[in-house]
Amino acid sequence: MKALVYNGPGKRSWQDKPKPELQAPTDAIVRITKTTICGTDLHILKGDVASVKVGRILGHEGVGVVEEVGSAVSALKVRDRVLISCITSCGRCEACKKGMYSHCENGGWILGNTIDGTQAEYVRVPYADNSLYAVPKALDEDALVMLSDILPTGFECGVLNGEVKPGDKVAIVGSGPVGLAALLTAQFYSPAELILIDLDDNRLAVAKSFGATATVNSGDGNAVEKVMALTGNKGVDVAIEAVGIPGTFDICQDIVAAGGHIANVGVHGKPVSLKLEKLWAHNITLTTRLVDTVTTPMLLKNVVAGKLQAKKLITHKFRLDEMMKAYDTFGNAAREKALKVLLTAG
Amino acid sequence: MKALVYNGPGKRSWQDKPKPELQAPTDAIVRITKTTICGTDLHILKGDVASVKVGRILGHEGVGVVEEVGSAVSALKVRDRVLISCITSCGRCEACKKGMYSHCENGGWILGNTIDGTQAEYVRVPYADNSLYAVPKALDEDALVMLSDILPTGFECGVLNGEVKPGDKVAIVGSGPVGLAALLTAQFYSPAELILIDLDDNRLAVAKSFGATATVNSGDGNAVEKVMALTGNKGVDVAIEAVGIPGTFDICQDIVAAGGHIANVGVHGKPVSLKLEKLWAHNITLTTRLVDTVTTPMLLKNVVAGKLQAKKLITHKFRLDEMMKAYDTFGNAAREKALKVLLTAG
Amino acid sequence: MKALVYNGPGKRSWQDKPKPELQAPTDAIVRITKTTICGTDLHILKGDVASVKVGRILGHEGVGVVEEVGSAVSALKVRDRVLISCITSCGRCEACKKGMYSHCENGGWILGNTIDGTQAEYVRVPYADNSLYAVPKALDEDALVMLSDILPTGFECGVLNGEVKPGDKVAIVGSGPVGLAALLTAQFYSPAELILIDLDDNRLAVAKSFGATATVNSGDGNAVEKVMALTGNKGVDVAIEAVGIPGTFDICQDIVAAGGHIANVGVHGKPVSLKLEKLWAHNITLTTRLVDTVTTPMLLKNVVAGKLQAKKLITHKFRLDEMMKAYDTFGNAAREKALKVLLTAG
Amino acid sequence: MKALVYNGPGKRSWQDKPKPELQAPTDAIVRITKTTICGTDLHILKGDVASVKVGRILGHEGVGVVEEVGSAVSALKVRDRVLISCITSCGRCEACKKGMYSHCENGGWILGNTIDGTQAEYVRVPYADNSLYAVPKALDEDALVMLSDILPTGFECGVLNGEVKPGDKVAIVGSGPVGLAALLTAQFYSPAELILIDLDDNRLAVAKSFGATATVNSGDGNAVEKVMALTGNKGVDVAIEAVGIPGTFDICQDIVAAGGHIANVGVHGKPVSLKLEKLWAHNITLTTRLVDTVTTPMLLKNVVAGKLQAKKLITHKFRLDEMMKAYDTFGNAAREKALKVLLTAG
Repeated sequence: MKALVYNGPGKRSWQDKPKPELQAPTDAIVRITKTTICGTDLHILKGDVASVKVGRILGHEGVGVVEEVGSAVSALKVRDRVLISCITSCGRCEACKKGMYSHCENGGWILGNTIDGTQAEYVRVPYADNSLYAVPKALDEDALVMLSDILPTGFECGVLNGEVKPGDKVAIVGSGPVGLAALLTAQFYSPAELILIDLDDNRLAVAKSFGATATVNSGDGNAVEKVMALTGNKGVDVAIEAVGIPGTFDICQDIVAAGGHIANVGVHGKPVSLKLEKLWAHNITLTTRLVDTVTTPMLLKNVVAGKLQAKKLITHKFRLDEMMKAYDTFGNAAREKALKVLLTAG
Repeated sequence: MKALVYNGPGKRSWQDKPKPELQAPTDAIVRITKTTICGTDLHILKGDVASVKVGRILGHEGVGVVEEVGSAVSALKVRDRVLISCITSCGRCEACKKGMYSHCENGGWILGNTIDGTQAEYVRVPYADNSLYAVPKALDEDALVMLSDILPTGFECGVLNGEVKPGDKVAIVGSGPVGLAALLTAQFYSPAELILIDLDDNRLAVAKSFGATATVNSGDGNAVEKVMALTGNKGVDVAIEAVGIPGTFDICQDIVAAGGHIANVGVHGKPVSLKLEKLWAHNITLTTRLVDTVTTPMLLKNVVAGKLQAKKLITHKFRLDEMMKAYDTFGNAAREKALKVLLTAG
Repeated sequence: MKALVYNGPGKRSWQDKPKPELQAPTDAIVRITKTTICGTDLHILKGDVASVKVGRILGHEGVGVVEEVGSAVSALKVRDRVLISCITSCGRCEACKKGMYSHCENGGWILGNTIDGTQAEYVRVPYADNSLYAVPKALDEDALVMLSDILPTGFECGVLNGEVKPGDKVAIVGSGPVGLAALLTAQFYSPAELILIDLDDNRLAVAKSFGATATVNSGDGNAVEKVMALTGNKGVDVAIEAVGIPGTFDICQDIVAAGGHIANVGVHGKPVSLKLEKLWAHNITLTTRLVDTVTTPMLLKNVVAGKLQAKKLITHKFRLDEMMKAYDTFGNAAREKALKVLLTAG
Repeated sequence: MKALVYNGPGKRSWQDKPKPELQAPTDAIVRITKTTICGTDLHILKGDVASVKVGRILGHEGVGVVEEVGSAVSALKVRDRVLISCITSCGRCEACKKGMYSHCENGGWILGNTIDGTQAEYVRVPYADNSLYAVPKALDEDALVMLSDILPTGFECGVLNGEVKPGDKVAIVGSGPVGLAALLTAQFYSPAELILIDLDDNRLAVAKSFGATATVNSGDGNAVEKVMALTGNKGVDVAIEAVGIPGTFDICQDIVAAGGHIANVGVHGKPVSLKLEKLWAHNITLTTRLVDTVTTPMLLKNVVAGKLQAKKLITHKFRLDEMMKAYDTFGNAAREKALKVLLTAG
């Protein structure tokens, strides 16, 4: 079969690889019908993710059709249409029983990381009963691909951890795909204000069309002042960090109101300076999280009910065998005005 | 009357001051029967707390007897015995309605800070209905003084914010009065392990006698390794920071398990480095809090029920007019093996 | 002044009464600009509410302008526009400190019950700082009147107690004003399905226009079967009882899914039969509540943000001095297709 | 092998049955080392549980040693010592993912009910990875047997659902094994008062020795008055129903304070009358639950930490082959002063 392979820093190819086979009775083999590319895949290609070895098939998002199941798989059968979770969970370890699948002792984020991933014609998914979701035929597959990672990430790490409530003032720092996913899902809880902050006016315009009540371009270094002005100088109830650098984290700690939440979503590469000399008395809650995908069933219900316009995040579409071109586009997201790119097999 | 007055950095005196008078219909005048000294008072004396002006009577803890009440005070009457909360709350602003009295728009921590405090023969307490607690005559006043600040601080900022649960592994960094207050009140929730960390073997011995299941002297720089060894290399569910310096905060972030809590109690004077490059994916919750004293009624019930040995924290007793000597003792806490000093009037 | 007075079962009059005066330093006198009539007022007129004595001015909802304040009122001043809460709270008793204002030891539901109410030109409001909400001038007063009682009742007793979550299936039994208030506010949490059940097709049509995803006329006795069919035979996550009779309670206990909630809002006059022989193993939560109006600030924020179309509940408008006619209309709600009637002074 | 078999109403025998065999790759065969008898087993023997067919081996509690595992069992291996949960959970259905194992679509309470149980030399346990808990060798097996059902039942259905908090007043109606299990585990949360109510003075004396702060013999019909007197006429914060008949439920609804919880644990055979005409305005929460055993890992930690004296519940010990005699004793619990009987193999 064909697959997108990591060949070391800066090197990727769309090449032949052996079709995966069942290795454990809890495995399933899925034929990919749709997949996408994540910002994390670009990090891997830079050589920044040490756990990914040369030769690895990338990708941890997608939908497909079950081709084969192991003898212990009982919730799924051949020909089922399935959503692939970016997090593999065994369902029985201590972390899984707490709903913290991201730290599953036997899984976690392994697809396209420590085992071969979904940017391929076929993928082997361990612990299939817990890591795949059978979906109704009528559901739009394009929307579903957004449920593999980006929407649960924005929702769980940003909205749920931030404890967004009706009437809240919420700021989201970063209007990329994950920030926008937080923006879409924050609206489940009817906050009064949803302020999006970014450097890119195009992305801020998209945010407006997705439901932001105000936008702030932080390019002039005055984002904090602007947000304070928008909130009667009180700050926000919830600040969601969706970038992953010290500067955007700083905005969050400067705009959070007493009693408020900072929900970190961004992937950070270095420490930040936490202003405890001010915040110690500020009654704040700061959370971090690798997405657990425990809310996938809830998000699916909302897609079915028409409450979550998951497809809005897709800006570009390709055939699966145009994978290299899709990477080129996604790798130049600002210039291409790309959010999520969608690849469709066959 | 006599009172302990801040006369600028390094200068304090026990001197004559006018007896306080009612200023608002919601005020009460309380005759102090017992009071104590807080670590914060020592900070003030160093000149570190800018809000405290020269001439201020210090102190924000104590019990006493109501001498006079304003026309709008309805929950209390003259001669009631009362516990004074370190936090003054109006009960009607947005913060108070959320139970965040520490950020009361009309109160908060003002006693011995922006208005005269409790280290005196009399004190004026604003919003008396909300800021004083009538107590039964039979209750031991020595124990009650520990409920003004130290016990709610350890409980709310450490134990409640840390979400200590039955079966948890808990580490408390700092075995001073506030760390020990957290230790005493953590036991309300039956954690399986309660590890105390400090530099002072005497304080660790006290911690053992207060219910610590293990103690770690961090003097050799190997506290993290020792805690990891004690927890099967998983780390703790809850790490309570009860010191207020970067080194102790670092211990907390190095020993917290995935999915765990860091509850900051310490008063910090400078920023700390938060290791987000590791913690972003670690599903942790970090909280800060100035005590709200919303749990004072609950703590009172536990003292009445004999479930909270509040008096254990008192190591030294003085007459109220020995205030200067009490400061000398408390100011040399390590040498004097002092935790809390108690001053009794008359 | 003029006021609507209860003269014993079946008897009411719009008559002269003395203008109220301050009685305590925490009181305020409010000139009524808008008020409404509650279903409870009709119960009182039937003689069903023993606490209401002959001669009482009815009414516990309204907005107005502060005319006079007691010496201890500090959050409000003369000429402030205010929303009157149906629940009076002292803000300092044990119940108030828990946020359970409905059981305030010094207040609770007293307006138009044990003290004179709001269906008058003026009303005295005790504990004004805690029981009145200053509102911005720009806000539409018609909408505000709906925040005195009906919206917090539907929200707190139905939606919050029912723990409505995104993706949930919710049924509301009773499509009168309080059921519709629950319907409007349930949408803060984006449930997937919102099924309204009533005997009156007109009210069900209103429910559809307010956001119900399905409606069931229970007139044929098959409401349970219909709801089960709508939910794939699993039942609903949340069943909200908004009528107050055994028959509607029965529907709730028959349609609630395992693990679900029954949130009682209705005022019941007799016991119900609880089917514990089935429900003991069904993992359900059943709640009751007299509205606390603790969410009034949150609801106000949502009205300001345009997230809550409070005015939708108003079907008929009268001048304040048409009170008798307004009662006639509201007393024939089905025939008049009345939800809430609005009375405006001057 | 030998097993206790239900032969129809009133008939049981200790007889030969075929040794169980693996039927699915997720099964395990466990050799029983310890088991016990539950009140539910007596109900079955009366013919009251329709799902139990003639010929069924009874029993849903026990500890043992893994003899054989299916190909998909990965968390356990032959010779592991295991605790058997009374609830079988697949770990992957919607109910299991919510932690509501009692309503597992593929399991739930099936042992000794719809499949053969643990009162035998061997038992087949489906979904072994999720339904068995490997336990350290050093742990006392007698204590462990109490974790199969009785302790999680008292804890989850009574204490957790009742939301027992430090300082609370708690009443437990029924001082049998499940009421005592609630009493033991309620102490994890340090309530101020723990009042046990029963008809049997012996059981009340046991309750005292287990930590009850007061006991009430309800034989004179004045239990409600006595509890109200003990609580300053306010009632209790939490009332735990641990019997399962209308009379004991009535006590609970008559003693619960405004804002309080009624946590039903008892197995009810008929409806109860719920006094909604009073309770509608009382802000109460009533819960029901079939034990989920989600807290088994937490309870295990507490047993290891010495915080839960599980063995206290065992009053009588037998050899496994004395099963018939053990039933005789347990069937006359009052006369025999029996709580739990323990059966030990070979």
